[in-house]
Amino acid sequence: MKTMKRVKTVATRLSDFGKWYTDICLKAELIAYSEAKGFIIYLPYGYALWENIQKHLNCTLQKTGHQNVYFPLVFPEKLFHKEKEHIQGFSPEAAMITTTGKKNLSEKLVIRPTSEILFSQYYSKTITSYRDLPKLYNQWCNVVRWEKTTKPFLRGKEFLWQEGHTVHATEQEAMQQTLSILDIYQKLGKDLLALPFVCGKKTETEKFAGALITYSIEALMHDGQALQAGTSHYLGIIFAKSFQIQFQDCDNQKKYAHQTSWGVSTRLIGALIMVHSDDEGLVLPPYVAPMQIVIIPLQTQDESVKQVSENLFSILQKNYRVHLDLQDKTAGWKFSQYELKGVPLRIEIGKRGLENDEVTIFQRYNFAKQNIKIKDFPSQIPQLFETMHNNMYQKALQHLEQNRKQATTYEEFKTYLKQGGYVAMSISGTDAELQIKQETGATARVILETNLITANCPVTNKKALQTVLFARAY
Amino acid sequence: MKTMKRVKTVATRLSDFGKWYTDICLKAELIAYSEAKGFIIYLPYGYALWENIQKHLNCTLQKTGHQNVYFPLVFPEKLFHKEKEHIQGFSPEAAMITTTGKKNLSEKLVIRPTSEILFSQYYSKTITSYRDLPKLYNQWCNVVRWEKTTKPFLRGKEFLWQEGHTVHATEQEAMQQTLSILDIYQKLGKDLLALPFVCGKKTETEKFAGALITYSIEALMHDGQALQAGTSHYLGIIFAKSFQIQFQDCDNQKKYAHQTSWGVSTRLIGALIMVHSDDEGLVLPPYVAPMQIVIIPLQTQDESVKQVSENLFSILQKNYRVHLDLQDKTAGWKFSQYELKGVPLRIEIGKRGLENDEVTIFQRYNFAKQNIKIKDFPSQIPQLFETMHNNMYQKALQHLEQNRKQATTYEEFKTYLKQGGYVAMSISGTDAELQIKQETGATARVILETNLITANCPVTNKKALQTVLFARAY
Repeated sequence: MKTMKRVKTVATRLSDFGKWYTDICLKAELIAYSEAKGFIIYLPYGYALWENIQKHLNCTLQKTGHQNVYFPLVFPEKLFHKEKEHIQGFSPEAAMITTTGKKNLSEKLVIRPTSEILFSQYYSKTITSYRDLPKLYNQWCNVVRWEKTTKPFLRGKEFLWQEGHTVHATEQEAMQQTLSILDIYQKLGKDLLALPFVCGKKTETEKFAGALITYSIEALMHDGQALQAGTSHYLGIIFAKSFQIQFQDCDNQKKYAHQTSWGVSTRLIGALIMVHSDDEGLVLPPYVAPMQIVIIPLQTQDESVKQVSENLFSILQKNYRVHLDLQDKTAGWKFSQYELKGVPLRIEIGKRGLENDEVTIFQRYNFAKQNIKIKDFPSQIPQLFETMHNNMYQKALQHLEQNRKQATTYEEFKTYLKQGGYVAMSISGTDAELQIKQETGATARVILETNLITANCPVTNKKALQTVLFARAY
Repeated sequence: MKTMKRVKTVATRLSDFGKWYTDICLKAELIAYSEAKGFIIYLPYGYALWENIQKHLNCTLQKTGHQNVYFPLVFPEKLFHKEKEHIQGFSPEAAMITTTGKKNLSEKLVIRPTSEILFSQYYSKTITSYRDLPKLYNQWCNVVRWEKTTKPFLRGKEFLWQEGHTVHATEQEAMQQTLSILDIYQKLGKDLLALPFVCGKKTETEKFAGALITYSIEALMHDGQALQAGTSHYLGIIFAKSFQIQFQDCDNQKKYAHQTSWGVSTRLIGALIMVHSDDEGLVLPPYVAPMQIVIIPLQTQDESVKQVSENLFSILQKNYRVHLDLQDKTAGWKFSQYELKGVPLRIEIGKRGLENDEVTIFQRYNFAKQNIKIKDFPSQIPQLFETMHNNMYQKALQHLEQNRKQATTYEEFKTYLKQGGYVAMSISGTDAELQIKQETGATARVILETNLITANCPVTNKKALQTVLFARAY
């Protein structure tokens, strides 16, 4: 549909994927850098994406009986030591408050890198009976992790997320919760973000510090690198033992409670950008877009054009996030602005078209332009959006499937890996996984629930025990 | 309407107002204490109040063109020194990150006690022309201030709030913004929280560190103490000068930008409790209540009672936040539970009433009970809620007006002050204000825009220059 690159200020994906990505983040005004290295500013357009994700997920979590809470930003350092695996995983990157303007604190306070400790401590003090269960708490908050290298949305010293922390009477119920959240995340990707995920268990080396099992949703970026976009952990009774979360069950026995924790973060926005966008800038699927439709009058000085534009605006406003651009700037300038910003649907209203009662609509994701009777237009939007959304999802799914291979030899594995995307291989275990990571930079994304590809592990030549999907990842 | 205290676990206001307040916070399950002193946990019922405040205010701020953003939790200490008055006000209570798990930071990071510095720094880098103005940014976030004495919702080391930070081309426009936000806050109190506020300018000693003028909304608690419930600051060009926020105006002149900042916090929940609640526990006005209606079947085992209850529930659910309590507990136990939790409207459904197609409704705020035809009930709720809300507002307003006096002598001032509430007095200035504070504990709440009460200041005997409303305050 198009040949010439209109938005000159954005690098192309092929020439420099990293620069292309940050160009979009900055020039589509999603974020700005702050004075504190690794901390970003979420500008209105970027934050609106997060708010739309919040609304959608909150709505789902309300139906499933989850309750929003807010736990403190900090906890005393001594609590950190209660769960050994957890502290090993998180203490290296934990920021601490040690002083106020006036004096040093007697005990360091850890800024939450995640809140298992805070919730477990609370649960240990309040849960006494099976009647208190389940607890289905969720919070939306900021967390801090001292990451060395940072990238907008994908990895920052501070990020925004939701973290669910639930407690159950039985292992079965907790396991069910863990998996149902995975479903909810997958549906969030499919229904709102047009993002297909590969879902599965993490290997022992990649699982959450303090979890028995970690499930993950993994997205494949345009450059062939994977991105962990969310996780759902079955914690078993690990924290329950460390924090003494015990309850009297209906059989009068004292038992440890079973926990889960799970989260998605502003990383989802990074995935959204890296999967859908193109060399002209951001491409947003319609349901999450902060601005779903932009109306551009081609002659802003023409009264009838203006009138029609304003009428259409006031009709669409009732059901859509729509913007009418009456600025005194050229239509061409506006076109490239809104293309850069990924507005899904553009309506061009001009004198010539109006002679036939027509307007021109332009779809950002496929650059399709068509003339359409203005009176027919509003009723066609739902179908237009649905098709657009489905096509974007299918395109991303196709990309994922085309870049998902399986290797029977280590050489083949390396060849596929160079081409980008996922490579499945049946391996013997952690030894093979670590060797692969060291030699190729690829990490185990998820364990596949499929038959073994080869009887022996191509890396160690030992008996293969599981099939793992590998990729280089953000 | 009632004589016996039903909820035994809550102290009475008269016997111990402080304990009564924390009893309600804890026993109505609004909050819990955390392991870090001064940091509280917002439990589902308490957090839902905050979410309802957020929804209401977000809706208003969207209509006025404000945009939500999210700025970082921290800023480098050096930025703190850019604005001298501001740092003097905030540095004593600023918490700082100095270390991570691995190593000490080369520069301390200040955790935002408020974000004028972060926004001003950003604005200084991005605003260049009058075309960039106004900027109408708002954020919902947590802030940290190292308060010595803390009280749930009213004063904590961490609290949740919204902070608006706007930039304008002219003084007039910024001033208008400052005042229109004050209106919005007043309306939030009146329409959602049934809280009347006294509004006005703060004195020089009480204004925000770094503001030219601070306006405040002040609520009067049941015990006669005042509470600053929100502020709107006109910053003038103070931060613009410190941070070099300059723009090219339409007349081609380079000018400093005019700023405002304003915020309301979880303090509003404290005010809500302290104004409306009674010795039986929490009393919530209907529009902000997380649970607006509770349906209690008097015979949970009776099929027809259960059926009617469930039908009513499914009808009401469409328009209200309603809960059906089918627990196997006595009706009396349930009554006191929901009274403690301040649920505005209770519906009792029992066999005897159903013989006449009647249910009993109970209004929490005035303990009024009445029988009502079940088929008439749903259509009457809007009127019921409106009356309830207005009566609660009027009662609070009456309390405010009855406890607002004016003094012509310092002795009279002290006498009134002991009775609780506000006392207006015309004073000479800061000298009188500080003497009053030292001798009586009362602080200047707002400057009144009225005629002088006395020509001379009763405290200093100098010429009176302004009339100030004083009170002891939280």
